[in-house]
Amino acid sequence: MIRTLAITRTHDVIMDLPLAELQPENYAWIWVDFNSPTDEESKLLDTHFHFHPLAIEDCMHLIQRPKLDIYDDVQFLVLHAIHLDDLHIEEVDLFLGSNYIVSYHGQHLQEIDDAWQRIVQNVHDRKIWARGPVAAAYKIMDKLVDNYFPCLYAIEDELAELENRGSRESVDELMEQVFDLRSRLLKLRRTIVPMRELLYRIVNSQHIQREREHTAYFTDIYDHLLKLSDMIEEDREMTADLRDSYISLNSNRMNSIMKTLTVITTIFMPLTLIAGIYGMNFAYMPELKWKYGYFAVLLIMALLGIWMAAWFKRRGWF
Amino acid sequence: MIRTLAITRTHDVIMDLPLAELQPENYAWIWVDFNSPTDEESKLLDTHFHFHPLAIEDCMHLIQRPKLDIYDDVQFLVLHAIHLDDLHIEEVDLFLGSNYIVSYHGQHLQEIDDAWQRIVQNVHDRKIWARGPVAAAYKIMDKLVDNYFPCLYAIEDELAELENRGSRESVDELMEQVFDLRSRLLKLRRTIVPMRELLYRIVNSQHIQREREHTAYFTDIYDHLLKLSDMIEEDREMTADLRDSYISLNSNRMNSIMKTLTVITTIFMPLTLIAGIYGMNFAYMPELKWKYGYFAVLLIMALLGIWMAAWFKRRGWF
Amino acid sequence: MIRTLAITRTHDVIMDLPLAELQPENYAWIWVDFNSPTDEESKLLDTHFHFHPLAIEDCMHLIQRPKLDIYDDVQFLVLHAIHLDDLHIEEVDLFLGSNYIVSYHGQHLQEIDDAWQRIVQNVHDRKIWARGPVAAAYKIMDKLVDNYFPCLYAIEDELAELENRGSRESVDELMEQVFDLRSRLLKLRRTIVPMRELLYRIVNSQHIQREREHTAYFTDIYDHLLKLSDMIEEDREMTADLRDSYISLNSNRMNSIMKTLTVITTIFMPLTLIAGIYGMNFAYMPELKWKYGYFAVLLIMALLGIWMAAWFKRRGWF
Amino acid sequence: MIRTLAITRTHDVIMDLPLAELQPENYAWIWVDFNSPTDEESKLLDTHFHFHPLAIEDCMHLIQRPKLDIYDDVQFLVLHAIHLDDLHIEEVDLFLGSNYIVSYHGQHLQEIDDAWQRIVQNVHDRKIWARGPVAAAYKIMDKLVDNYFPCLYAIEDELAELENRGSRESVDELMEQVFDLRSRLLKLRRTIVPMRELLYRIVNSQHIQREREHTAYFTDIYDHLLKLSDMIEEDREMTADLRDSYISLNSNRMNSIMKTLTVITTIFMPLTLIAGIYGMNFAYMPELKWKYGYFAVLLIMALLGIWMAAWFKRRGWF
Amino acid sequence: MIRTLAITRTHDVIMDLPLAELQPENYAWIWVDFNSPTDEESKLLDTHFHFHPLAIEDCMHLIQRPKLDIYDDVQFLVLHAIHLDDLHIEEVDLFLGSNYIVSYHGQHLQEIDDAWQRIVQNVHDRKIWARGPVAAAYKIMDKLVDNYFPCLYAIEDELAELENRGSRESVDELMEQVFDLRSRLLKLRRTIVPMRELLYRIVNSQHIQREREHTAYFTDIYDHLLKLSDMIEEDREMTADLRDSYISLNSNRMNSIMKTLTVITTIFMPLTLIAGIYGMNFAYMPELKWKYGYFAVLLIMALLGIWMAAWFKRRGWF
Repeated sequence: MIRTLAITRTHDVIMDLPLAELQPENYAWIWVDFNSPTDEESKLLDTHFHFHPLAIEDCMHLIQRPKLDIYDDVQFLVLHAIHLDDLHIEEVDLFLGSNYIVSYHGQHLQEIDDAWQRIVQNVHDRKIWARGPVAAAYKIMDKLVDNYFPCLYAIEDELAELENRGSRESVDELMEQVFDLRSRLLKLRRTIVPMRELLYRIVNSQHIQREREHTAYFTDIYDHLLKLSDMIEEDREMTADLRDSYISLNSNRMNSIMKTLTVITTIFMPLTLIAGIYGMNFAYMPELKWKYGYFAVLLIMALLGIWMAAWFKRRGWF
Repeated sequence: MIRTLAITRTHDVIMDLPLAELQPENYAWIWVDFNSPTDEESKLLDTHFHFHPLAIEDCMHLIQRPKLDIYDDVQFLVLHAIHLDDLHIEEVDLFLGSNYIVSYHGQHLQEIDDAWQRIVQNVHDRKIWARGPVAAAYKIMDKLVDNYFPCLYAIEDELAELENRGSRESVDELMEQVFDLRSRLLKLRRTIVPMRELLYRIVNSQHIQREREHTAYFTDIYDHLLKLSDMIEEDREMTADLRDSYISLNSNRMNSIMKTLTVITTIFMPLTLIAGIYGMNFAYMPELKWKYGYFAVLLIMALLGIWMAAWFKRRGWF
Repeated sequence: MIRTLAITRTHDVIMDLPLAELQPENYAWIWVDFNSPTDEESKLLDTHFHFHPLAIEDCMHLIQRPKLDIYDDVQFLVLHAIHLDDLHIEEVDLFLGSNYIVSYHGQHLQEIDDAWQRIVQNVHDRKIWARGPVAAAYKIMDKLVDNYFPCLYAIEDELAELENRGSRESVDELMEQVFDLRSRLLKLRRTIVPMRELLYRIVNSQHIQREREHTAYFTDIYDHLLKLSDMIEEDREMTADLRDSYISLNSNRMNSIMKTLTVITTIFMPLTLIAGIYGMNFAYMPELKWKYGYFAVLLIMALLGIWMAAWFKRRGWF
Repeated sequence: MIRTLAITRTHDVIMDLPLAELQPENYAWIWVDFNSPTDEESKLLDTHFHFHPLAIEDCMHLIQRPKLDIYDDVQFLVLHAIHLDDLHIEEVDLFLGSNYIVSYHGQHLQEIDDAWQRIVQNVHDRKIWARGPVAAAYKIMDKLVDNYFPCLYAIEDELAELENRGSRESVDELMEQVFDLRSRLLKLRRTIVPMRELLYRIVNSQHIQREREHTAYFTDIYDHLLKLSDMIEEDREMTADLRDSYISLNSNRMNSIMKTLTVITTIFMPLTLIAGIYGMNFAYMPELKWKYGYFAVLLIMALLGIWMAAWFKRRGWF
Repeated sequence: MIRTLAITRTHDVIMDLPLAELQPENYAWIWVDFNSPTDEESKLLDTHFHFHPLAIEDCMHLIQRPKLDIYDDVQFLVLHAIHLDDLHIEEVDLFLGSNYIVSYHGQHLQEIDDAWQRIVQNVHDRKIWARGPVAAAYKIMDKLVDNYFPCLYAIEDELAELENRGSRESVDELMEQVFDLRSRLLKLRRTIVPMRELLYRIVNSQHIQREREHTAYFTDIYDHLLKLSDMIEEDREMTADLRDSYISLNSNRMNSIMKTLTVITTIFMPLTLIAGIYGMNFAYMPELKWKYGYFAVLLIMALLGIWMAAWFKRRGWF
């Protein structure tokens, strides 16, 4: 589906003009949105807009890093949207000219709709929307990046919960969760770090922004991405610390299991030996004849057992 | 609560003028402090001061990295105060113009009060305070950063104590403390590293400081932050080393537990077997008839036990 | 084998002219391909083309990092092709002059053939091929880098499969696969990182590209290499995480084995002791005379065994 | 104690002039050394020399990173001396003007004395000492940095000895030494890395050195610090490798302990069972009546034991 | 021993002139080689050549990082030769002037001899040798760096062999070899990384090379050093992976040892208990009277043992 938006020189919005009638030079600027386009529609990037073949190829393949390519008079941006539930990545491509912006995305995206609505609604009372397609590009990026936060917050919530649950639970399960969190953080970083580099390039390059005002806006997005990538790095370090603490917990538990085993063995083996000795069938074993021999041996066994248990107790083995 | 401070051109201080009567152009410079302001008061940032909407939005949200944004003639700074007891972070926002400074913080902060008092008291005898709002910004930052040190010192004290306590205690508890220290260091770093980057930008940028004198002051704060972040990195490495030494201690203890178990088993199993053999009920077992058989077997058992114990002793197993 | 290609000023292609008759100044540009050349043919690099002796030496030795050397009017590029099946590396050397390109590779390579065909087929309908030997160099690099992706995808597929297989299998085998993946990623990185640095130099240097158009093409390859090296780093981190999770899994299994052993020992040792006690041959052991003594002892043993088993069960040991 | 040194324009040395009579403009240059000064004397930094308050404050607090601050016409340097025996850090502060140097240190330091003597002795035969206070600053730094080497050499000697001692000793003790070495390396790095950065700044800045000659001298110190910090990094890696090898050694020992236990258990348990079986009191057990039953069982036991021992031997378990 | 070499303006070589008669201004350039000089000869660096005292001091001490110092009109280079057999480091110092080169090395070195021979032999047919002492410096460096490769190849061969040997051998020995390889890689890196930095400085500085031709040659050495340091880093990562795989192998073996122990214990303990029960001496134990009691118990024991073994077998414990 292709939808269009034209801002007139008098700051009015005209929507849904057919592409054929929409000539940028008649308006302040226009926005054409390829929303999950058909193959037929995708071909218009080449036949109608005559964009650079490399950029169009990038749109079609949809497996790109966020990036900024500059072709003569048009800037080509690849951006990423992230789905909150499964951290699935959706690509958004922007073609940015002096008086037009073309957005292209294979799936319907709420972030694009939000940016679209903001422009339509605010065209009158905020001059910024009249400033050109860079404002639309800013709004789209802002919405995309804003949606990264809940993804990370969800991970941080689980992490905080994990830290509090402590050692009562099965280390096995805790470990699995830590590794799951780490792999989701990696997945998130795969998008956020290149986005941050991209914004850094935008803020520091001479191309997109010529006015001071624009820089402030993009710097704001850059700050958000910087904060996000800082958080991810710290969360990775936190999970690494957690993992190490679980491993050490496991090894402590092993120690205490082994102690139990050793205590049991050490107490019962000598007693069993004593019983074994008096079970021998020698013809001449004087103790066996003694009337209180049996009770004496039981007593010795009990005392020996108690003494050994006390000794281990004192050394803190159980 | 909003409080104001105006420095006259004759180096006098006028305090608590209502905001409406306070016109910067009549004074050397003014300081307006939004101290845990109401929503009503917060709106004055927009209606009275006409600050940039992005900066005001940052004030409201209060979850920012320390940063410096430059909007035309006003510099916007986000700073962090840290509570000593729980390392909780409090945000302080500064709007810095050529002849005014506006500070904004959601909670009452002792550091701001200290800076305020220093300016009120020293306005006469130190020319620096007449130099403009940059001096106030310096004083606030200086107080904030000075308060980071006790937070880190508290951690370093615990760390030093931990190093000395050595191996007598339960590894489990020591380990927990190490992980607690590591997580607090991470938390502290979350503020100090961006603050350091911020000060680096201030010292090296052309915006805030135009006079050499200012640079010296901000360089001083930068040096403190550099020292803090160096200390944090080293403390992280120290805790990592401690953690590794505890893990290795644990594995050593495991070894010694296993040795005990093996020694006990190795000594008693053969003895038990001998007792078992002479407990068999075969009709023809010549030793059983021998008068000293029993004592001979006891002697053999004792010698065997002693020899094995000596052998393990010589190999250093217990 | 040496094959030649000459593009005339009228955009025609003349193929397989003998080297002696091929004078660059008569054509738009020419391409000479040394395809697994004999020693005799290799000498032509010196005798016919008079390339720099250091460059020729590099061709002969074939163990080079991807690199770009600039000798007066000729640029010398060392590139790597990777075989999909065993990640074996094949070297491709390019000599790039203003109106000629000479490629040199010890083995026949499909990538070079593909680039060759693309130029022969598209010489008419695409002006780019008339632009000079840089276009051929781009096409060769593009084909080489495109062939890196399946190598990495094969690894990522195995990695994804490994993640899903989970803990049912022998940790030993899983571990071996992880280490195999890690070593293949290292092998791949050995080519991709220097290629990325090389492309970075090409994109940012003033030598190869004088026209904007070229930069766009090489930037595209650079983006691919950047994505590849990002993927490799992440895959290395993923495998490290997997390895750690297997190690922790192993230690968990050890814990559960030790628990089994301890449970068995703790239950049977006391029972064996009891049996041993009543196997002693004392003359006066009152219980032995009691008619129900045997059954009472069996009952006590059963109760004790059940009680201990229940106790371990409640503590979650099995 | 304050001592002074004045170099006349004729290359003579005048020592121990009172501070009040010492006017820099009458001499080539002067050196004032605050050697463990009283509070009274320390105040002269402010009252006599009028140094910048921030620099004086840094002198008083004595807990600084090595650094270089530039105040108008005076350069303020914070340097560190290290005590060989306990790696304790002593601070040395230098104020460097065009024709004077003021050194300030809380404790008496041999390094300062050495530098002082070198200047007094060599003032005639070496022109360099007439070049100004930079030469004195160089000499002080050179002496300080030269004294870092024995600190590191002591650590490296212990490390080399540790590597040779090998596996005969208690892993526990070896481990403790490795961690002690690591923590001392960290302590040393805390001084050497900021000193290196400081020297880098001096060598590359325009302030201190205006003549080529000076650069060569400071570059020499910088090279020493670079070598020191390289050595520290490598020693850290070596200790990490040692630590890992000890941990692996420990785990190998554990394996061999467990093997011993398993071998003992596996050999004696079946034998004990056999003895137990023939100790049963069944009325009808045919073997018991057989005259050679006992010897047959003993033989079977011996063969079984030998066979199992041989089997474990062949598998390399002991 | 001092030997000399003078290249005349007519490209002839005059060898072994006494130092006193050798005046650089009469020749195209000269090379003086201090080959394991006596103390007497070493003094000529000062008395005859008047080199900078810092550089001469560096020659004498022989414990330097590879480096380049620039003193007015002479460049001072410290280079390292590595002995293949024990990775022992030998220092080579070069003084490089506009028309002379002085090399200084405490031991006889084959690499210097090779460079010397190359110059003597090729002085006629290759113009490069007439270009000046830089060509000799290049040749020396080239020979030194070429000799690094066999050192690294020897390590890589052992590493490859280690990877193939697999898990059949004692982990203890494999581990020791891995740590030996790691420590040799560290030792090698100690020379190669500073050499690489040195070459980087040479290639990018304005001092040594003024002609393009020179840069190409030094870039070639730099490429070799870059490849060497890349290889070392990768080999370090490979050995780290190997180490981790051995540790995991060890832990797997531990698991299998523990399983054996647990299986043995679990099978024999219940059987021993049964035997113990029927060895009790109760007056009334009905089973004992039963004619087939003994055989029934033996059968039960056998069935129980087989069943437990089968159960462990099915769970894959042995």
